Amino acid sequence: MENCIFCKIVKGDVPSHRVYEDDNFLAFLDINPESPGHTLVIPKEHYRWVWDVPNAGEYFEIAKKIALAQKKAFNTDLVISRVVGEEVPHAHIWVFPASFNRGEFEKTAGDKKDFAGNAEKIKKELSSSRS
Amino acid sequence: MENCIFCKIVKGDVPSHRVYEDDNFLAFLDINPESPGHTLVIPKEHYRWVWDVPNAGEYFEIAKKIALAQKKAFNTDLVISRVVGEEVPHAHIWVFPASFNRGEFEKTAGDKKDFAGNAEKIKKELSSSRS
Repeated sequence: MENCIFCKIVKGDVPSHRVYEDDNFLAFLDINPESPGHTLVIPKEHYRWVWDVPNAGEYFEIAKKIALAQKKAFNTDLVISRVVGEEVPHAHIWVFPASFNRGEFEKTAGDKKDFAGNAEKIKKELSSSRS
Repeated sequence: MENCIFCKIVKGDVPSHRVYEDDNFLAFLDINPESPGHTLVIPKEHYRWVWDVPNAGEYFEIAKKIALAQKKAFNTDLVISRVVGEEVPHAHIWVFPASFNRGEFEKTAGDKKDFAGNAEKIKKELSSSRS
């Protein structure tokens, strides 16, 4: 969709740190991360809300792959996820590493602005889980 | 798991307003709803986090069914979802109806404590989408 920032990222007109890509979905680092490695998983085609995406099961399986890779990459026990999408009108699932202590979650320590390094860490875990 | 409130709900030892059930998953109304029809979707088997559930795709397809039924049942354009689970240590996906106005989401109006009535509304839409 014209003027949609995520559609521009899909096309490559806007740069991003990609961690995963296939025919239907793309995962890249959030530019305003909650914690290091905070990733957005989006359908390449434009849909307003996550629940509008036809292949929801496939979508969630990919979010899970990212989540499990983040757990290893950042040595955390928890990955927080949100399925909302009021900020940008293109369906997206938030996935970011966290820890769970004394009944509360805590954001993972580290340099959340080291986008290149954090993307590499996730990609490394994704490729090792594939082999 | 012993002493897990959600496992007790699965077994029927603790009452709940069920809206959906199959061999692997159960959906029931949250006892502290954010908005009318606020539903929890859980695996019947005990897992700590959503990302520990083996059949994540199937899980999310069911959450989507509930979300689309809620949109119709409560005449909203949006269904908010969270995949966290720090409150109860049994994997669960929150799904609750909302509206989207002026860049913000608003909780759906109605009697959120009318559990029986709200469960009926969702079940009615679920059964009509099946036929």
